[in-house]
Amino acid sequence: MAETTYQARRERLLELLAERRTAAAAFSHLPNIRYLTGFSGSNALVLLSEREAVLYTDPRYELQAAGETDCKVRVVRGALWPELVKSVRRRRANSLGLEAEHLAQAEYARIGEQLGPEVRRSDVSGLAEGLRAVKDAGEIELIRRSMDVCGRAYLQTLRKIRVGISEAEIAAELEYRMRRLGAERPAFETIVAAGARSALPHAQPTGSRVQANQLVLVDMGASREGYASDMTRVIHTGRPTAPTKRLYAAVLEAQLAAVDAVRPGATCASIDGVARRTLTRLGYGEFFVHSTGHGLGLEIHEAPRIGRRVKDVLERNMVITIEPGAYIPRQGGVRIEDTVVVTARGAEVLTAVPKELLVL
Amino acid sequence: MAETTYQARRERLLELLAERRTAAAAFSHLPNIRYLTGFSGSNALVLLSEREAVLYTDPRYELQAAGETDCKVRVVRGALWPELVKSVRRRRANSLGLEAEHLAQAEYARIGEQLGPEVRRSDVSGLAEGLRAVKDAGEIELIRRSMDVCGRAYLQTLRKIRVGISEAEIAAELEYRMRRLGAERPAFETIVAAGARSALPHAQPTGSRVQANQLVLVDMGASREGYASDMTRVIHTGRPTAPTKRLYAAVLEAQLAAVDAVRPGATCASIDGVARRTLTRLGYGEFFVHSTGHGLGLEIHEAPRIGRRVKDVLERNMVITIEPGAYIPRQGGVRIEDTVVVTARGAEVLTAVPKELLVL
Repeated sequence: MAETTYQARRERLLELLAERRTAAAAFSHLPNIRYLTGFSGSNALVLLSEREAVLYTDPRYELQAAGETDCKVRVVRGALWPELVKSVRRRRANSLGLEAEHLAQAEYARIGEQLGPEVRRSDVSGLAEGLRAVKDAGEIELIRRSMDVCGRAYLQTLRKIRVGISEAEIAAELEYRMRRLGAERPAFETIVAAGARSALPHAQPTGSRVQANQLVLVDMGASREGYASDMTRVIHTGRPTAPTKRLYAAVLEAQLAAVDAVRPGATCASIDGVARRTLTRLGYGEFFVHSTGHGLGLEIHEAPRIGRRVKDVLERNMVITIEPGAYIPRQGGVRIEDTVVVTARGAEVLTAVPKELLVL
Repeated sequence: MAETTYQARRERLLELLAERRTAAAAFSHLPNIRYLTGFSGSNALVLLSEREAVLYTDPRYELQAAGETDCKVRVVRGALWPELVKSVRRRRANSLGLEAEHLAQAEYARIGEQLGPEVRRSDVSGLAEGLRAVKDAGEIELIRRSMDVCGRAYLQTLRKIRVGISEAEIAAELEYRMRRLGAERPAFETIVAAGARSALPHAQPTGSRVQANQLVLVDMGASREGYASDMTRVIHTGRPTAPTKRLYAAVLEAQLAAVDAVRPGATCASIDGVARRTLTRLGYGEFFVHSTGHGLGLEIHEAPRIGRRVKDVLERNMVITIEPGAYIPRQGGVRIEDTVVVTARGAEVLTAVPKELLVL
């Protein structure tokens, strides 16, 4: 993204910091650092103040940092925090914002000792995440491209799914296809769960082989240029029984109803409620054991959470998943998930893969 | 692993806790939870005391937890910590150990409020990691199997590496092969860096294509049944120049010397020193910008770190990497890395892939 993008983000964040009378803040959560500076390495801190933005990293990342970010870069051998703290003390700052939700308690205590009693620590957790919840046009385009890779990899892999292939082989194929299509990695551990294992909402793929007359649940996402996508589809090998068809139809009805309810101004709880009431009405309420969705972007789970008691209000250009499911223990489960953008009037579904139960 | 293994590990940990007069401790770092209970899901806490071991997780993992662990399982809807704290208060415990190095400061503060002033918090960070640094026979076997998958995937992929293939395509192929051979995922982001990019010690694979007369650095690892492996090899397309041969020979000499120095009783700093002095003597000291290695197991980086000022002493059955490198900015870099077990008298190299500069 253009350098001006990062600078604009930092300026908005500085405004939020100013509202809290925080003149300087240190960011340590890597997705926030990437959002604010463009740097994608695995070891960094950012010190942000009205005067400047400084990225601290180690010598392994010296060239990469120079190429990725418009910030001033300080290359440090050894621990980064002591150097950042020295700089704060040198400027005689009397307060420093820290990300207390992302900083280990022991590290937080060490930083406090290094800062000394003159520097007050405040919690700036969630400020960058708040900005990140509403995407800009460049980000939506990146998520669209990530979703595209994910959907195409799924469709390419469908041809290989048949009785006898193992869950792990399907997962390997899906991930390989995503990679070949331009993903740098899966956005999370690809889930492939066949038969009764589809009732485990977070099953890891095993060596067990797909059999005839089984549900096969695939939950996958790509990370492409740092941005995540997320989708779940369910396949059936052979003709599904009437109870399986009913289960699938119920989850699909809940998913479509929830997508339909998405619009700016709706609360997250209301969207969750639509999915939950639909499944309850159809007799599957007790089997819907998770929330309806979550924001995604530089992380696979970000604000807002689309859950039962979440009062957050959807805004235009948020990107969220809608993924109700129902899991009948020891029998099987169905989840249907799309990645959607909140538009001016409703939702745009980015997941371009049919949602009918696919019978192979 | 057998249930008795987990129980034995918890008993050793309880002994360490008793030495610190800590009657109960809560573990939240997932690799520690897997080590202590066998549970491999992504949301859990473990409350450990003389009386019992209780695993807290959410409904998504109910069946998985029942299958994986010998502990008592408590399935909680919503946040896990409040339930664990309730149990601590019910027993009228007056202290609770917490992993302050792994617990966000904000979470730590919330737990403190929930516990109330009667319950003293102590830091039990590093205790489980200390046990984990020395592997048991079952773990060494798992790391061996992980390394085996990694090495075979590399050798299978070599056939595809030629001028014109992109870094990202090589990485996709390596990861696909690992998956097919039984890995659940790469242990870390596979590094494939060609030409001048090989001088970036942590380069992410890009779409740039391998050209003639280039170094191609591959740093890869598998995660198999939870256990990591790690290796780095370097290829050259076409006949290397004399400076490139010298660079390669120097890194190889440093790597062999460091492996040769590994034995129980040696300090980590001494192993690092052997590699560093060798590279310095051969004129590349300033280009060796990282430490010589690290322990690995359930995490890709664990204790001990094989670094310049690390006084830790190697013990039999530790598993570590030995990976010196030299990186000439804008020209190219070489790193050679093996995963090795500290044996009774020296080291066993688990990485069964030749270390000569491979010319394609």
